[in-house]
Parts: sequence; C-alpha cells; structure tokens
Amino acid sequence: MGLTLAEKIIKNHLVTGEMIKGTDIGIRIDQTLTQDATGTMAYLEFEAMGIDRVRTERSVAYIDHNTLQTGFENADDHRFIQTVCKKHGIWFSRPGNGICHQVHLERFGIPGKTLIGSDSHTPTGGGIGMLAIGAGGLDVAVAMGGGEYYITMPKIVNVELQGELQENVSAKDIILEVLRIMSVKGGVGKIIEYTGEGIKTLSVPQRATITNMGAELGATTSIFPSDENTLEFLKAQDRADAYTELKADDDAVYDEHIVINLSELAPLAACPHSPDAVKSVEELAGMKVDQVCIGSCTNSSYADLMKVAHILKGKTVADGVSLAIAPGSKQVLNMLAQNGALSDLIDAGARILESACGPCIGMGQSPNSKGVSLRTFNRNFLGRSGTKDAEIYLVSPEVAAVSALTGVMTDPRAYADGYKVDMPEHFLINDNMVIEPASVDEMDKVEVLRGPNIKEFPKTSGMAQDISASCSLKVEDNITTDHIMPAGAKILPLRSNIPAISEHCFTVCDTEFPTRAKALGSSIIVGGSNYGQGSSREHAALAPLYLGVKAVLVKSFARIHRANLINAGILPLEFADENDYNNIDLGDNLYIENIRDQIAAGNGITIINKTKNVEINTKCALTERQKDIILAGGLLNYTMMNK
Amino acid sequence: MGLTLAEKIIKNHLVTGEMIKGTDIGIRIDQTLTQDATGTMAYLEFEAMGIDRVRTERSVAYIDHNTLQTGFENADDHRFIQTVCKKHGIWFSRPGNGICHQVHLERFGIPGKTLIGSDSHTPTGGGIGMLAIGAGGLDVAVAMGGGEYYITMPKIVNVELQGELQENVSAKDIILEVLRIMSVKGGVGKIIEYTGEGIKTLSVPQRATITNMGAELGATTSIFPSDENTLEFLKAQDRADAYTELKADDDAVYDEHIVINLSELAPLAACPHSPDAVKSVEELAGMKVDQVCIGSCTNSSYADLMKVAHILKGKTVADGVSLAIAPGSKQVLNMLAQNGALSDLIDAGARILESACGPCIGMGQSPNSKGVSLRTFNRNFLGRSGTKDAEIYLVSPEVAAVSALTGVMTDPRAYADGYKVDMPEHFLINDNMVIEPASVDEMDKVEVLRGPNIKEFPKTSGMAQDISASCSLKVEDNITTDHIMPAGAKILPLRSNIPAISEHCFTVCDTEFPTRAKALGSSIIVGGSNYGQGSSREHAALAPLYLGVKAVLVKSFARIHRANLINAGILPLEFADENDYNNIDLGDNLYIENIRDQIAAGNGITIINKTKNVEINTKCALTERQKDIILAGGLLNYTMMNK
Repeated sequence: MGLTLAEKIIKNHLVTGEMIKGTDIGIRIDQTLTQDATGTMAYLEFEAMGIDRVRTERSVAYIDHNTLQTGFENADDHRFIQTVCKKHGIWFSRPGNGICHQVHLERFGIPGKTLIGSDSHTPTGGGIGMLAIGAGGLDVAVAMGGGEYYITMPKIVNVELQGELQENVSAKDIILEVLRIMSVKGGVGKIIEYTGEGIKTLSVPQRATITNMGAELGATTSIFPSDENTLEFLKAQDRADAYTELKADDDAVYDEHIVINLSELAPLAACPHSPDAVKSVEELAGMKVDQVCIGSCTNSSYADLMKVAHILKGKTVADGVSLAIAPGSKQVLNMLAQNGALSDLIDAGARILESACGPCIGMGQSPNSKGVSLRTFNRNFLGRSGTKDAEIYLVSPEVAAVSALTGVMTDPRAYADGYKVDMPEHFLINDNMVIEPASVDEMDKVEVLRGPNIKEFPKTSGMAQDISASCSLKVEDNITTDHIMPAGAKILPLRSNIPAISEHCFTVCDTEFPTRAKALGSSIIVGGSNYGQGSSREHAALAPLYLGVKAVLVKSFARIHRANLINAGILPLEFADENDYNNIDLGDNLYIENIRDQIAAGNGITIINKTKNVEINTKCALTERQKDIILAGGLLNYTMMNK
Repeated sequence: MGLTLAEKIIKNHLVTGEMIKGTDIGIRIDQTLTQDATGTMAYLEFEAMGIDRVRTERSVAYIDHNTLQTGFENADDHRFIQTVCKKHGIWFSRPGNGICHQVHLERFGIPGKTLIGSDSHTPTGGGIGMLAIGAGGLDVAVAMGGGEYYITMPKIVNVELQGELQENVSAKDIILEVLRIMSVKGGVGKIIEYTGEGIKTLSVPQRATITNMGAELGATTSIFPSDENTLEFLKAQDRADAYTELKADDDAVYDEHIVINLSELAPLAACPHSPDAVKSVEELAGMKVDQVCIGSCTNSSYADLMKVAHILKGKTVADGVSLAIAPGSKQVLNMLAQNGALSDLIDAGARILESACGPCIGMGQSPNSKGVSLRTFNRNFLGRSGTKDAEIYLVSPEVAAVSALTGVMTDPRAYADGYKVDMPEHFLINDNMVIEPASVDEMDKVEVLRGPNIKEFPKTSGMAQDISASCSLKVEDNITTDHIMPAGAKILPLRSNIPAISEHCFTVCDTEFPTRAKALGSSIIVGGSNYGQGSSREHAALAPLYLGVKAVLVKSFARIHRANLINAGILPLEFADENDYNNIDLGDNLYIENIRDQIAAGNGITIINKTKNVEINTKCALTERQKDIILAGGLLNYTMMNK
C-alpha cells in the first residue's frame, strides 16, 4: 500500500510507536523555530533542562510579535533571546527582519524535513513540502534538546485542487473555501495534503498561504508536494541544493477526499468572528469599510504585495479608510523598495508598518469602535484586534486593496487587467539580520542578559492522590486561546512573566477569574467543545497552572492546547456524556479520589460533584508517556527525571 | 529705532496692547495647527464656542501622535478630528502623512505669517520665517474662532552664527550648543532670533531643526530670516509664491547677544535627563549603545535621512544595537523610496517605522532596562521613552547613524568623506493625504463622529470668594509636563477623556496623588522653579482641574503651562519669597480669603497656612484679561461670556 507524502516524512522520522492512526507516535525533529512571545518561555525551559547546545539541524529564534515596545519588557526579552541563542547554538533573526514563517520559508525551510515551532502557524512550512507543526514552547525546548516530538498519528485528508484560479481570485480564497467546507473543528487530528493538477498553478508563497491558514482548521498540519515550483522558489532564494522532489505514492490511501475546482472559486471573506464563517465577497459587496490591513504570515509575500502595489498605483485610499501594510520580511520590503512598488504603496496613502506580525496579533492598528476592518490575516476572533466591538473580515490581498480604494467591500474581479506577478529569478538575499550562534569554543563566554520582567518557568510538583477543587469557571464552546490568555498590546509584553500575565487570564470572559482562582487555591475549569482552539501559546496552560487550576473538563479539546495542558501537568478531561456539562456550575465543590490510580488505570476519571451530589464520568485518553508526564507534574519535571 | 524680525511680524499682527516688553499683547493669528493628542480637546473646545467655521487663513489638523493604536480610542479620535475638520473648515492630514511640523513646513508654512499650534514644537515654523508659537488647545480653539492670541511681549535674543559647520557636524549641534549656553530656563519670556553670516550656510530644514528644539529653551519661539535659502526651499516645494524676503532692520536692538562660531563647533549630545545637559561626543566616545532612534520633528527631513542612508549604505547595524528610523513625512519617505536610500536603510538592518512621532512621544521602541539610547529627538526627560531607568542621549543624525554601526558613541567627523546632500530641485509633491474641508454649502451635511472615549471638556464655574484647600502635592524644581501628565503608549490614548487620563496625573512623582486630590475635593499644588516645562499639553492643567486643584504655587512657571493653568481657571501663584517654599508641606491646610478681591486688586495673594500658622505672600501677575479669565473660571467660560 502506498504512502501519502506526510506519511513518508513521518516514516523517515519515526522514533517511537507505529504509524497507526489514532495512536501516539514520537518523531525526530530536524528544525525548530520560536517567535518572541512564546520564545522567552521556551528558552527558559531549555535552560532549565541543562543542555549546553541544541541538537537539531537548525533552530532559529525570531523577533516578530512584541515589536511595538511600549515598555522596557520587550527590548529586555529580545536581548535575552539574542544572548541565550548565541550561547546555545540557535540562529537569531533580529527585530525588523520579518515574520518567523515568512523568513523561515525564504531562508531555512527544506522539503522533507520536520519542523516544530512555538507558533500555531508553523504549518506555513508545508508550502515548501516540510512537515511543519505548531507546538507548545516546552515541546520545542525538548526538541531542541534532541527529544522526539509526540503527536497522535493523524488521519490524512486529501484536498485535490483542479483547474486554475481566475484573475484576482487568490490562494487565500482556496483556504477560505477549505474552511467553509471543513469548519474550524474539521481538521482536528488530521493532516491536510494537497494534490491535483491545480497545485501546479500555485507558487510556493501561494501554497504557504494555504498551509499557514490550515491552522484555523485545527489540523495537525497541511502539506504540499515538493515539485518544480518548489525548485523554482528555492533557486530564486539561492538554495537549489535544499531541493528534493517529494510527493505521495500514486496508490496512497487517504481518510477523506475533498475536491475543489479552482476555476469556479470566487473571492471569499471570513465574517466576524470566526475564520470559518465564510461568505462570498459578492454577497457582502457594498458594505462600508473603515480599515484595511495587509500583511501577516498569511499574506505578506513579495507576490502578494506586488499585486497590492499594482492595484493601488496612482490612486488614493478612500477618505474613510485607514490602510496599513506590513510587508512580511526585510527581503520583501527591500525588494519593494528597490523596484518602486513601495513608493506606489506610500504614494497611494498606505501606512507602512514594520515587517512584523503587528495588527494580526493585536499589536497596534486597532480599528475604531464598531469599525469594519478587512484584513489579509488568519484570525478574526472577537477582540483580537484590540477593539472589542470591531467587525473583522478575513480576505485576500486583492479584495483588501480594491476595497481600500472604493471604501466598500468590493469584488476584485471587476478590476482584473491581466497583471501577473512572476516569481523573481533572484530574490534579494542579505542575511545580515540573522546572527550566527557562537562556536562551541566560544559559547561559554556568552553572558545571557535577563531583564527584570523575565521570571522563571513556574515550579510544579507531582500530581496529588486526591483533588478537592471548586469549579472556578464555566465557559461555552469554541473557547480560543485568545479567550484564555489574551494577546494584544497591553498583555503580550508580559509573556516572560507568568505571575504578571496570569492576572489577565480569562479576563475577556470573566474579569474576576484570576482573583477567584487564586482565592480558591485549587480549582477546575469547565468548558464546551473545541476548547483551546487558536494559537500555540503555552501561556494558556501556564497561567491557569499558576492560578491553581488542576484539571480542565470539556466536551472536546483543540490539539495543541491539550498537549500544552499535559505539558503543564494539568489534567485534560472530556465528558463521557456531554450532557453532564449541565451537571456542574460555577462554584460547585468537586472531588476526585485516588486520582493517580485512576490515571494509571486509564479507564477515565470519576469526578464527584459534592454540591449537586452527582458523579460525573470523564474520559482521559492519555498515552503511557502522557500519564507519566501528568503524574510527574508536567513535561519539564518529566524530562529532568528521565535525563 | 529699527525692529527685529520678530518685532516686525508682531507689529503687523498686533491687535491689543503695545510692543512694550513684559506687557501683555494680543496678536492676530493667520494659521493654526493641531496634532491628535492635543487636537481632540482643542476641537471639543472649538465646538463648545459655537462657531460654524474657522476664521483663520489656514488651519490644519494632523494625526501623528497616537498612531500605534493599541485600542479603539485612537481610531475613534482620528475619525472625530477628521469629521469635525470637514465640518468646520479645517484641513485634515491623515495618519501616515507625517509629523505635523515637518508637513506644515513643507506644504503650508509662509514667511511672515503667525502660526499657533497645540504642540510645543510649533516654533519649527520659525525655520521658514514664521512667527510660530506653541500654545494650549484652548488658545488654538479661540484663534480658530478669530480671537487674538495673548502673550507677554518677549525680550529678543540675537544668536549670531558665524563661519560654517565642519562636515558631520550638524544643525542639531547648533541648538545643543545654544541649550548648553542658555539652559532649559534661559529662553523664558524671550524670542530667539538667528542672524549672522553663518545662517546663509543653513537650509530651511536645518534652520527648522534649530527653531524646533528652541522649545527646550523655554523660549516663546525662535526665528530665522526669510532669504534666498527660504526661496530655494519654497521653490522646490512648488510654493515660490509664498515667498517674501524678511529680515531684521540693520539697526534692530536686541536684549541679549550670543555669538556662535559654527566652524569651531563639535558634535554634541544632551545627556540624561535634560536637553541642556550637553557634553561633547568626544567626551562620551566609546560608551556602549543599545538602541538608536532616528526621526521626530527635530531631525527627520529629507536631508537628514539621506545623510543617514549614506552612512549606513552597504553596512550592517552593530549586533547589540536596535536601530529604528521614522521618516518625518510621506514626502520624505517616498523620496527615499524612489531614490534608493530607503533600500540602503532597510538593507543595513534599520527598522522602518511609520512616519509619525513614534518613540519621541514614548509611543513604542522603549529601550531595554538601563539601556543607553541615542536619539535624534528633542527631549530626554526621565521616563519619557517608556523605560524608567533608560539613559537617553539627544544627538544629531550623523552621530546616531555612525554609532549605530560601531555600537558605541562615536564622533562622526572621523567618517567624513565629502558627501553633501543638496536641496532637491523639486520635492516629490502629492497632497492626496490632506483632505479639504467641506465647502460652506456642504458643511451642514457633515456628521461629526464621536467614539465612546471622547468626553466633553470639563465644566467649570467662576472663582469662589474664599478658598480652603490642602496642599495635595509638593514637588521640586524643573517639573515637566511629562511629570504632571505623562504621555507614552498607555496614557496618550486617553487624551480625549479627562476623567480617565486624570487617574494618571502626577503618578510618576506620587502614585497616590489622583486619589488624594479627589478625596480632598479642593487642593493646592506646591512646586519649585521652571514648573511645567516641556510640552504644550493643556491636559497638564485640565487633569489637575478635574481633580479639584484650585491653585498652583511655585517658584517660577514655564510659559505655556502657566497660560494653560489660567485658561483652565487655575490660579498660578509664585512665592514672593522663595524661602516660603519651606513653609508648606504636604497635607497642610491652606486658606485664601477674599480671593476675588485680591485678584482684582493685583497686589499678590496672601495664603494662610493654618497648619503652620504662617502667612505666605505670593505674586500673581495677571493682566486684566487674565484676571477676568480666572474669575470667570477659565477661558472657555470667558469666551462664551464675551461672545
């Protein structure tokens, strides 16, 4: 029986387990990446493990999230990361060099390699044929130390692309169509593998847009074959030697099959407040727009911005619209500067922001009250823009640019004029903003610089035998990590300070939660389905941990967040009967007896609701390794114990 | 007897009073400008006056301060300003179009005209031969309504420039030298008028750097003649018709005379934490640098940035340095984009920020803890950078750029290579980001959009007959408006919400002040000399007003702040005997009897310190108009009563 492309890469990297779907496997990791908002914690964890030098083929630290720097914390964090990288063998991409996924694709991604990154959009690398997975910081730290990375062997979904996109319909519309079909829960436990004649019409940056936003499906990752288009891209990046041809076997077997005819696709938009609330732009046409933002790891490639510049050239952004553009990398920005396209953007009235995540992670450019903002980004969760009552629509660069000119949501097909961005023969290459690590001989001399905001990873102890805890919070379905641990300009700078950031935990749902949880001492959170969707931030586990949360009991979990809970030593429980969701209320006294034995037995965990006097049965499907991690009080303890 | 240039312009605009130094005069205002952080309040005040349309020749509103937009407030404020401008005859410069002073100089400044702006660096216009003065928002509102602007007829200081600057010594070094000579108090009650052969070697942008930072002298304004260099600049801006030759009479009489030989000048730096703590760069050479910031209304002209690009071209910013560059205007940014200089900056690793005030007003790019930051800005007050223990040095673009490469404070004269930036024959002109106001016929149809953060100007009532108040705060000498009403990324967005921003009043000196002042109900602040130096922000008067402050008693005041206190209806008092500063402590019960009669009599005000049982005599040198304003409870009440 033939293998899919993902299966081939997994097979090549398999260390533990067998490729049986639904079972736990451990894979060898070739490359890691971090960004700064998750990176400080990942490197503190790496330091705690006491390993001198990374054991990966390539580990890179990027600074792209906390670049506004509205207090001392960010610059301190940047220096910490820069020096810890220098010391331990990690490459450091300086602030201004660009968004991690864009730069990694340009300069470091290699077809067929495995990559984990402490950012949920790490699957961007799938555009170049990598198996690239978003993970918690601690998983990345373990991988940097040479440890394998554990996932549940996923199902493989084949998305077959036929035909060719019409002009001004874009790669963004393809992934929006996939989201429309599959929903934000549809990818859980799955890898999305793209095939079909249509992929030949898509360049690496277009493919990367699709795999990037595949994160919003809840998928483990997404991947494209490595073919002549991949080679063309790598050649232009002066990296032809990184090329290998890779594709699924002809007789590969997939678990699901979806066909999308690109020729029939129209421009789409994800409506507030979910990436799968997809409608056609035609349906929404004429809606007044207040703001347009172009950029993010989804849509800030050279080709994307050249297209935008072409649309804006010689025109002026509508009076009522603020247009902000953040090119994805120094390479992109400088190519636009050199070929005149940047001048076209400036001339039209675009506000040019630093090459960084910026407004996509709520770092600036918050829209006006009740404002309608079209963004080429990947998430439109409520409040993520920094404006609680704003209406965020996720669209392609073409829709964004045309609508910025008209001032209303506009179908860009009416503006088609035959313009096409060719893959440059040579991208502009200058890696002077990437700092090499110290040599083995020099590494001991490097001093790691720590600012006063940088606090240690919270210490934990092994799981107790009995837990008596109150329900400190009860939330609904589809809770995102932005609900649990909000980002944005005011909170993101606290990412290296768990005590301080914990004061903001879940405050978008309930301002009293941090105070209540701390007062309770020990508590349990109750939630609905798809709990923890969104970003990879392990702070969504570490802050509850710090606040005394012992278990999270929900209808179902999102993948990375569940892994982060286990890594933090918090018990992830699912209702055996979802109706029991109604049998717990805020403040109920809950009791779990002989919890260590129950975990070890693996037959689920029984919770006694003493307030309502009912027993609630829960599922706790942990692998043996995960059981040990939970019993040890988290992955860091576990790793230290097994060193 | 001949007149100085400033006297000539004043004479041409004199409405009330006589040109007798030290007496109050009212002058007609031709132009006004506002920025957004002070503008919302100025336009709320203008609206409160009930005038349909501005009566100035040109009023322009700029958006340059609150451009990070880390919450809904800023975009709401921008929309409010945009719509209120459209309705009432004011030109609106959109966010991204640049820093108010830079853009105003380029596109709107006219030699010989009067300009007041609700920003302390309005004297930038003096570089083109305007009489340009920083003022409180309410003064600007009154001027927009056609009212005259009142100042004390200043003394005139002649700064005679001889010789020519060496290569890589710059206009910034000239104003730093003037600050070294005169100090931050040296310009109070004075206009600085530049003459001498040396001025012929200085272009308008260089002159503007000097007049801009003249604000740090505490001067009323600074001014250069309008000559062939002015014409050259205006021609290149396609505005030759705005030119008039203007200079002092040969027999003009000045109150003070300072001679500076440019040929002997060396690169200088203002050391932490005052713009007059000037040392030579030579003395400081070798000091490790963590950050370099280039931009601000002081040093972000085309010529400045071309010089920086030349220095950086083909090199890389030192590993330990973060270099941020914010070009001053869309015009500058786009010219750099078109001629390749922007690419040189990007290539070297500069972080390109939006054309706005940015880090100069503490909006982002806060340095690391205890970090050394070289900035081409105008103020280095403690904490203004957003990092309380950072060390900020104010330097020229040349010092900044060279030091960014070496990583240590470096004298740029060693890098001289004969490069010179010529005045462009034609600047790149595209005013598409300036929105024209509605025509008289259309203005009624414009709806003014108000967000929920926009609160009305606080209502006041006339001065009481007796005041019983406690001393709610006692502070030292040289208190800046950044102490009284801090700016920065967290507080600046609250500028249109006096109740909210008041919670931060004086909290850098005493975190309890807002709570204490509110609890006292009615109180008096005691301070030292040069109280209220720094920015023009009237919030430094409006927040104390909101918190119940009735009088401020100090050794001496800075000009704009004293005017703002009067405008707010707060009594500005000076100790008759400075030793009495020691006769009041925090919490003392103070009593002023028959205050209305004492004000009217004009012989000073007697304060009884009931706690210490002593009488304190104070000076209260108010003009008749100022007395009426104070008695009416502030300028807005006064204006409404006299409409």
